[in-house]
Amino acid sequence: MALIYSARIASAAATFTTNKVKAAPVWRAMKNIRSGKARAIVVNAGNANACTGWQGMRDADEMSRLTAVALDVPDKYVYSSSTGVIGVKMPMDRVAKGVKDMTSSLGSAGIKDAARAIMTTDTFPKYVARKVKVGSAEGVIAGFAKGAGMIAPNMATMLCFLMTDIAVEPRALKAALRDAVERSFNRVTIDGDRSTNDTALIMANGAIGNKPIGVGSSRYKTFAHALEEVTYELSKMIASDGEGATKLIEVEVKGASSVAEAKRGALRVANSMLVKTAIYGNDPNWGRIMAAIGSSGIEVKEEKTDVFLGGVGVFLRGHVTGAENEARRKLKKKEVKITIDLHLGRGKATVLTCDLTEGYIKENAEYTS
Amino acid sequence: MALIYSARIASAAATFTTNKVKAAPVWRAMKNIRSGKARAIVVNAGNANACTGWQGMRDADEMSRLTAVALDVPDKYVYSSSTGVIGVKMPMDRVAKGVKDMTSSLGSAGIKDAARAIMTTDTFPKYVARKVKVGSAEGVIAGFAKGAGMIAPNMATMLCFLMTDIAVEPRALKAALRDAVERSFNRVTIDGDRSTNDTALIMANGAIGNKPIGVGSSRYKTFAHALEEVTYELSKMIASDGEGATKLIEVEVKGASSVAEAKRGALRVANSMLVKTAIYGNDPNWGRIMAAIGSSGIEVKEEKTDVFLGGVGVFLRGHVTGAENEARRKLKKKEVKITIDLHLGRGKATVLTCDLTEGYIKENAEYTS
Repeated sequence: MALIYSARIASAAATFTTNKVKAAPVWRAMKNIRSGKARAIVVNAGNANACTGWQGMRDADEMSRLTAVALDVPDKYVYSSSTGVIGVKMPMDRVAKGVKDMTSSLGSAGIKDAARAIMTTDTFPKYVARKVKVGSAEGVIAGFAKGAGMIAPNMATMLCFLMTDIAVEPRALKAALRDAVERSFNRVTIDGDRSTNDTALIMANGAIGNKPIGVGSSRYKTFAHALEEVTYELSKMIASDGEGATKLIEVEVKGASSVAEAKRGALRVANSMLVKTAIYGNDPNWGRIMAAIGSSGIEVKEEKTDVFLGGVGVFLRGHVTGAENEARRKLKKKEVKITIDLHLGRGKATVLTCDLTEGYIKENAEYTS
Repeated sequence: MALIYSARIASAAATFTTNKVKAAPVWRAMKNIRSGKARAIVVNAGNANACTGWQGMRDADEMSRLTAVALDVPDKYVYSSSTGVIGVKMPMDRVAKGVKDMTSSLGSAGIKDAARAIMTTDTFPKYVARKVKVGSAEGVIAGFAKGAGMIAPNMATMLCFLMTDIAVEPRALKAALRDAVERSFNRVTIDGDRSTNDTALIMANGAIGNKPIGVGSSRYKTFAHALEEVTYELSKMIASDGEGATKLIEVEVKGASSVAEAKRGALRVANSMLVKTAIYGNDPNWGRIMAAIGSSGIEVKEEKTDVFLGGVGVFLRGHVTGAENEARRKLKKKEVKITIDLHLGRGKATVLTCDLTEGYIKENAEYTS
């Protein structure tokens, strides 16, 4: 379990899974976040508290209530978040003990410990911190996340908690988070599955004493940009740590008729099991990439299309170049870039994913329900 | 290679891949099928003749022309079809030799040989024949297919050739094929990838001498029903022989708001890598099924939903039943049925798929481009 506590009341904003089946703590947080305020976030890993009916709702309430009482803050400003197996009742005695332990030792753990505490099938803790100048003062945006499986656009089994000591108005915080998530977590896909629990939550408590940043100010731009850098860094960590992954794959589609078409095409390629297994096998199989983009439903003209693997053009304006061996060498790296230029317009989008390996199968065939 | 030859001119109809990137023989056949007539189909496995530009178009023409000349029939009534690796020039000398060998030994091979000849990563030949009464006469509908990888709705790397000695008007043949494909091949998904080459082609040469069947007649219904049974049988073979598959999975969604919603939900579940790996591992992980259906975008109310695994209710009206162990036993069979009842309407659809195993990864990481 992990606990984030702000010594002062913080502005807060969040984005949640678009899955119609949502975990109990997600329903609760969606309601409470409307206040735009937070004091604490309490997180558990191992049990998702999803598909648990009314009992699950009561347990999510209780997890927040116990934390609120121990911290002496209002219930409604304490968010709870869960990740793990679906459909199993929360072990509330263990939750109560965890809350007691954490609230009685506040300040004894850092962001790395928190990142480690919420890991499920992640192989390394994911956290980032970045300094941001706000006039003459300096603040920090820090965040930690978990990812691994069931990741698909629109935030799938992905939890991310962000904190900053910069003061930001709730409306500005909401806008900055929404944009940052759209350009980072919503462009990560591991297996096309979307979870019931995805949450990205940010608290901004203004401890550095700046005048709260509002939408449209020049400081807003600086803040929003830094936040996006933090979420993008976390997204790359999540993609590279997909279950069983050996490689990070960046799929860029450009020259599409629109940004929406570019994103749709890139997602289709990034979700193609055939493309992902080919990259795993260091196979410059651009035919599968063409088949995937062609089946995405976006406008594609074979005779205008370029495909690059690690910057090497393997298919240019509809013609094979014969550079497969050069491309194969690029595929052996830990980070592989696939670029598809459709030469139809100015739409551009990048999606992050990982290769598909036997490791994914093993992990998910054995991860017990 | 395989060759299907009709001693008399036959009515013909076909459906093709919806992928924007189509193989050369597909473009050619799409144009020629408008005549509603055919004499022969020539097929090769190993090379898809896709993403091969103008050279590919010339090669597809040449493959048909060589066959037409040898059989002494018009060019335009000879269809060619290819499957295999994308982006490699057709080895036309080998094609010419194959055509020569086949046309000089007509009638020496049966449907099983043809089914075997077009296999790529298929592990067994797929063919079906069924007798159909037409008034006092009796005809046969026979078909063979290949599948295995890159299968997704709308006919992905799926070739299917159907023949009948019953006379059917071209318009009726087209309608019957379209409906049969919609209810069979278009509901098979192996990995969500759609191929550049998918083709289902039927020839009806009327050798039994019946009056050609037209749309709307009672004989049309009998014929269309039998055709659908043939394509459904072939679909089941394709699904159970998905690359690396150990099990056939039938996903039925019922009680959806509409048939379209039911199909969309069933496809999402059937394409979920997490669901497919769970079934492989005999894991009654209905939580992944709920997460998948919830992320399909269709209307779902958790508290109304039932999930059955092999007929065992594991989640009923939003409540865990605790029947996991009983369900686990059902999952150990070679054919597994997942049923999701949304209790929202009367929409119903079934989709066929297979489990996802290390075998799929191995095969596709090593299948060279």
